[in-house]
Amino acid sequence: MPLIGKLVICGVGLIGGSFALGLKRADAVGQIVGIGRRREPLERALALGVIDEIATDWADALRDADLVLLAAPVGQMDAIMAAMAPHLQDGTVVTDAGSTKRDVVAAIRYHLGHRLAQVVPAHPIAGAEKSGVEAAFADLYVKRKVVLTPLPESRGEAVELVRAAWQACGATVVDMSPQEHDQVFAAVSHLPHLLAFGLVDDLAQRDNAELLFSHAASGFRDFTRIAGSHPEMWRDICVANRVALLAELDAYLDEMARLRAMLAAGDGPALEAVFERARRARNAWAEGLPVQTAE
Amino acid sequence: MPLIGKLVICGVGLIGGSFALGLKRADAVGQIVGIGRRREPLERALALGVIDEIATDWADALRDADLVLLAAPVGQMDAIMAAMAPHLQDGTVVTDAGSTKRDVVAAIRYHLGHRLAQVVPAHPIAGAEKSGVEAAFADLYVKRKVVLTPLPESRGEAVELVRAAWQACGATVVDMSPQEHDQVFAAVSHLPHLLAFGLVDDLAQRDNAELLFSHAASGFRDFTRIAGSHPEMWRDICVANRVALLAELDAYLDEMARLRAMLAAGDGPALEAVFERARRARNAWAEGLPVQTAE
Repeated sequence: MPLIGKLVICGVGLIGGSFALGLKRADAVGQIVGIGRRREPLERALALGVIDEIATDWADALRDADLVLLAAPVGQMDAIMAAMAPHLQDGTVVTDAGSTKRDVVAAIRYHLGHRLAQVVPAHPIAGAEKSGVEAAFADLYVKRKVVLTPLPESRGEAVELVRAAWQACGATVVDMSPQEHDQVFAAVSHLPHLLAFGLVDDLAQRDNAELLFSHAASGFRDFTRIAGSHPEMWRDICVANRVALLAELDAYLDEMARLRAMLAAGDGPALEAVFERARRARNAWAEGLPVQTAE
Repeated sequence: MPLIGKLVICGVGLIGGSFALGLKRADAVGQIVGIGRRREPLERALALGVIDEIATDWADALRDADLVLLAAPVGQMDAIMAAMAPHLQDGTVVTDAGSTKRDVVAAIRYHLGHRLAQVVPAHPIAGAEKSGVEAAFADLYVKRKVVLTPLPESRGEAVELVRAAWQACGATVVDMSPQEHDQVFAAVSHLPHLLAFGLVDDLAQRDNAELLFSHAASGFRDFTRIAGSHPEMWRDICVANRVALLAELDAYLDEMARLRAMLAAGDGPALEAVFERARRARNAWAEGLPVQTAE
């Protein structure tokens, strides 16, 4: 008996598809059913062997399902939960892969309020600048973190099923509150994406854009890699987490105002101190050491 | 006869050391002499076989030299040129690897005004987030760009010698004016570095910095890679190019103010339009296509 007899994935792209492939490789799943807004990506997922079957409606999909993964952009969660709620059975655990958690938890409480014991919100921390089921691969979650934000009402067995599924994909699972999750990821993920999108957009609109980009090198390539991310997904993340993201953006703009003043004053020592502190933190982090060290 | 009989490198770190190794591999150089502020890095360069000899002073170094590469942070250029000027002979071509060009040209005019025909300013565009001669390697410049900003007074043969030396290292050489160079690199290199240093510094000072960094993933790693760059070098670049960099920073802060307003208003369609435009430009650039395309 596999860990999961019947798995339903709503939204079979990079995230949902890689979950399917990881579980298949671990022999942790029996049957995988895909469902989604549009039929065409599901047909491709079926052709690629990522899913075994396409569901025509939620009643069909949820029949005897053990686990449902909602892997759609967070802006679609309300509509998805509203559609699935009437067909959800007692024995089906529901989880999601949404990049924000307070808004997903709010949608869960609104639409699945009678089913909270079987719902376990989650967020796999895996790069997604390429999207679509063609980009999915079984290794995506190996040694990556998955954050669970269980509800106070979530049943222990439901939490353990979701944890075991992600562990079967090779991930390390950690628990956080939805609030803590959203603040942390506003800082280390959502803000950098916004900054990278902004830089590329700023430069791409210049009259001399071709000249500028023709001289961009490896530093620019890495800095802007996340500006290749999925626009709809990042629109939804920004809107869903805008309170925490605005706070992070404002803190960053304050920092940049300080750097601007140093620059305008030609204050080399002050700039060097900031750069040195940043380099030390960046390198410590990259080596797995504490970021804050005694000077 | 190699292209260069005697080469002098002032500052034998990643940039100068990789130039030495590239030329050696191409059999384009006879003897390489190192000179610098401190003896210890030169000893390491000698031990690693990057240079053949350590000069004790500029008179010694410049005797019968064919080419001198100044590969020190741009903040040291004034002092270096002042020290070398009295010993520079007629037959020696001088070039540099400074990341900014207007300030280097100003220093050249001030200190080497009687020698302009034999001076050819240049800037190799190669990643330098690791520094020091231990990081040097012969392939660093293969398929990278090197920008020459020849003076109106630069002699044709001097320009061709510098061009041929970089081509021997595998680089593609392009010519620009110092002004154009400094504006282009303020936009695509200096600004991203400042933004990355600022983000890491902002987050590293938080009370919950360890928690934040412990959840940072691959997007953050790439975005902040350049925050591991050499603080002194980047201090000098920022100060030397502060007029162009301030203009770029202000344009960027205007863009981010527009994005902030979209975020505060929860204007998903406006955010998505920016993200889509940025993604299209980033992906076109990464594929070698024009950045600006008809919508």
